[in-house]
Amino acid sequence: MEIREAHDEDWPKIYPIFRAVVEEGKTYAFPENLSLEEARPWWMEKSPAVTVVASEGDIVLGSAKMGPNRPGRGSHIATASFMVNPARQGKGVGTALGNYAIEWARVRGYRGMQFNAVVETNEPAVHLWKKLGFEVLTTVPEAFGHPEYGFVGLHVMYRNF
Amino acid sequence: MEIREAHDEDWPKIYPIFRAVVEEGKTYAFPENLSLEEARPWWMEKSPAVTVVASEGDIVLGSAKMGPNRPGRGSHIATASFMVNPARQGKGVGTALGNYAIEWARVRGYRGMQFNAVVETNEPAVHLWKKLGFEVLTTVPEAFGHPEYGFVGLHVMYRNF
Repeated sequence: MEIREAHDEDWPKIYPIFRAVVEEGKTYAFPENLSLEEARPWWMEKSPAVTVVASEGDIVLGSAKMGPNRPGRGSHIATASFMVNPARQGKGVGTALGNYAIEWARVRGYRGMQFNAVVETNEPAVHLWKKLGFEVLTTVPEAFGHPEYGFVGLHVMYRNF
Repeated sequence: MEIREAHDEDWPKIYPIFRAVVEEGKTYAFPENLSLEEARPWWMEKSPAVTVVASEGDIVLGSAKMGPNRPGRGSHIATASFMVNPARQGKGVGTALGNYAIEWARVRGYRGMQFNAVVETNEPAVHLWKKLGFEVLTTVPEAFGHPEYGFVGLHVMYRNF
């Protein structure tokens, strides 16, 4: 598995994963039914943030984006988002992307990383982030409309470096 | 004091307050040194969010923006931001704008309102939001670079309707 920075020409291969993950509706509060071009700015980041792609040959296994959580006086804390190809879940892609993002932020001098909205019922993600040193700071009640469970909480998770 | 929706032509009168508040550096993580046009999209919202202005005759006393905190499956929780003219602080402008935002969100069917980043040392704001029914869910440690106190925490505050 190779992880590298994604460029504009990678987006058509990332987009089907974005669509599948958003339409499953269990992990992210992105707008639904976005076209290729509408979805692009929601995932493909501009400097100082970056988007990366994890691939095996021509197959995109997953993607992540990372950068400052806030501008200005909040820009020393990073954030990141992750999507794994539904056909390749449970095979270490999320772990590899998570470690990549932490290292990316650490070497750039960020003091910590904050996840603003981890769906509390997304157990594989919550488990993974805890394994990578994040803790749940709080859970905003009923902040996410889950297709099976109705309104569930969104974790704010954090780790420092 | 009148509070009404702000339009493009109001921005030149709101902008000096935005600049003053951001440059004081004690309450918001916006980029600094933004020109009139650069700052506009950081404060002037598009539907379904709105920006409002509180004025007394020709004088802008303050401004607020309010809308969904997240798109898609998170869009039932509102958020809002507030700025009061530094020359008119402590005179009820923040309270009036806060009540306006809560009512705006309530009548539109939002289930709650979340503030993502209230600087913990901004005591007038923290006090006001508590008075208006918000609680501190957590404080993200050292997430804001304060010009006097160094790294201070950012409160996540929330109230339901």
